[in-house]
Amino acid sequence: MEKPIITDLCIIGAGPVGLFAVFEAGLLKMRCHIIDVLPQVGGQLSEIYPQKPIYDIPGFPVINAQNLVENLMEQIAPFKPTFTLGQRVDEISAPEPGRFFIKTNEATVVEAKVIVIAGGLGCFEPRKPSIENLIMYEGNGVNYFVKNPELYRGKNVVIAGGGDSALDWTIFLSEVARKITLVHRNESFRGAPDSVDKVVTLAKAGKIDLLLQSNVATLSGNGHLQHVEVLSKDLSKTNVEADFFIPLFGLTPKLGPIAEWGLNLSNGAIEVDTHDYSTNIPGIYAIGDINTYPGKLKLILCGFHEAALMAQTAYHHVYPDKKLTFKYTTVYGVNEF
Amino acid sequence: MEKPIITDLCIIGAGPVGLFAVFEAGLLKMRCHIIDVLPQVGGQLSEIYPQKPIYDIPGFPVINAQNLVENLMEQIAPFKPTFTLGQRVDEISAPEPGRFFIKTNEATVVEAKVIVIAGGLGCFEPRKPSIENLIMYEGNGVNYFVKNPELYRGKNVVIAGGGDSALDWTIFLSEVARKITLVHRNESFRGAPDSVDKVVTLAKAGKIDLLLQSNVATLSGNGHLQHVEVLSKDLSKTNVEADFFIPLFGLTPKLGPIAEWGLNLSNGAIEVDTHDYSTNIPGIYAIGDINTYPGKLKLILCGFHEAALMAQTAYHHVYPDKKLTFKYTTVYGVNEF
Repeated sequence: MEKPIITDLCIIGAGPVGLFAVFEAGLLKMRCHIIDVLPQVGGQLSEIYPQKPIYDIPGFPVINAQNLVENLMEQIAPFKPTFTLGQRVDEISAPEPGRFFIKTNEATVVEAKVIVIAGGLGCFEPRKPSIENLIMYEGNGVNYFVKNPELYRGKNVVIAGGGDSALDWTIFLSEVARKITLVHRNESFRGAPDSVDKVVTLAKAGKIDLLLQSNVATLSGNGHLQHVEVLSKDLSKTNVEADFFIPLFGLTPKLGPIAEWGLNLSNGAIEVDTHDYSTNIPGIYAIGDINTYPGKLKLILCGFHEAALMAQTAYHHVYPDKKLTFKYTTVYGVNEF
Repeated sequence: MEKPIITDLCIIGAGPVGLFAVFEAGLLKMRCHIIDVLPQVGGQLSEIYPQKPIYDIPGFPVINAQNLVENLMEQIAPFKPTFTLGQRVDEISAPEPGRFFIKTNEATVVEAKVIVIAGGLGCFEPRKPSIENLIMYEGNGVNYFVKNPELYRGKNVVIAGGGDSALDWTIFLSEVARKITLVHRNESFRGAPDSVDKVVTLAKAGKIDLLLQSNVATLSGNGHLQHVEVLSKDLSKTNVEADFFIPLFGLTPKLGPIAEWGLNLSNGAIEVDTHDYSTNIPGIYAIGDINTYPGKLKLILCGFHEAALMAQTAYHHVYPDKKLTFKYTTVYGVNEF
């Protein structure tokens, strides 16, 4: 076995809630190591909508998703968290109570007293359309997320989908790309009425092409994507120049290996006690979008609260003999490690 | 009866949690009226520590308390909350289910479908030392809170107390006042060790006067405070020039009239169900420091979470026939009233 990384709390998931858990743990003098399958911190914020504004973080009338991640990284810096990024947690084991080993797909091993699952949607994967040579163009014109809108500046872009992501990125990229074609299999959209209106208006003004009751059928190009062929319901075909094809059919959240750890699950989420967001396994907690309880809302601000309550009980796993007295940062400040 | 102010939610308490409740209600198209006994919004933040930094608001490595209040006011502005400030809620009545009348000590009447108690510590009052003519100098040199440190610039200030407030303000004002005298009845302090060290260092350096095992016994002055007499344990008396006397013996939280409304209480806090932070009376919710439940932490960030879950259920009181679909602000934005 590789020499393990030793820590107090091993946090699985580097999204906003996992990051903030470092702060709440740090206030109680507990050290954290974070593992995330994504190559960067921030979770969905960085991976799915880094450029999008968020309006419901308390105290921020508006904040860009990536800025929130950066702020959280600054907030937890005094507690010197360590990271294993781009690796998936595959196995956990507990040779004795209060001592966990967490092993990733690349054989990194973390030894911790507490496991905090802040896994968001899990190892989420984009829903992919069934197009024969799709995989061939992945990374060569086919993208499932818009990470950096500038990539599309002056390019021909085909977006497929009928939900909010497809609508929102069509509206946003219509100002950036040379040409946007939105392909949707139905005649009506599932997204916000306001976004639908905007897309229809853009189409009427000739600023985007809208192909309804249609699907992207084939992709072609010389190494990199150059054309997509769109097949309509009446079987007519349209050939569209496309430097990029962005299918936005949503994400399939997959719990992945977490589902095998013996945790009580309900509809793919981990059941927790709202007293401290503990799972049915002593020493394992679940916070943020991955947990469920009566009244659960999948909001970042709720995950922050869950992290705070989790830390209070986690303390007793890390310091079984100590009494915890509650202290306000306004009075005591933040004492870095 | 006065003509009532009609609203969906009547929020009692304009602290950070009461303010953020307006945002969560507004996202669900519910209008709010806020009542607070204090003359300004912000609750404890504005009243007790407006100039203090807060470190544990997620996404803010540090934020000044008053700035947080201002940010929250900006965040809720799209939902046009209305306010009754400087009045205390004395009575509530419900002539029929889902219809509340809330009456203040100045006979303002609010009619609402839901009551949200975000009352913080309640109608908190400073603990006052027993000094005969104390009341005479209240507002004429005797202050129980430091609202604006600049008031003390170049002045002779006597602070009394042995906890964190007394220590923190002694340290802070030592840079502002002409002279600070800290009077404490014991020999050791209850505050953070770090703060105690700083105060002792300041005293050794002659930058403050430290009178231990002593009490302020009498106040004198010509209309405005001019001197305090300090009596030590060995009965020796010291006359200290004092433009201001700031006794910092903590606050006595008083629920006030809320205690008479038939709500289930536990140790002076309102018992709630963590599913939606509802009280035992249908249509009345309690969020923030004033409520209690297993695992409760009196943190602002927890109150934010409680406000979000409260709004989901409150919706059904305001719109009994409508189904609520959950929407993300990142997708739908904030639609102002």
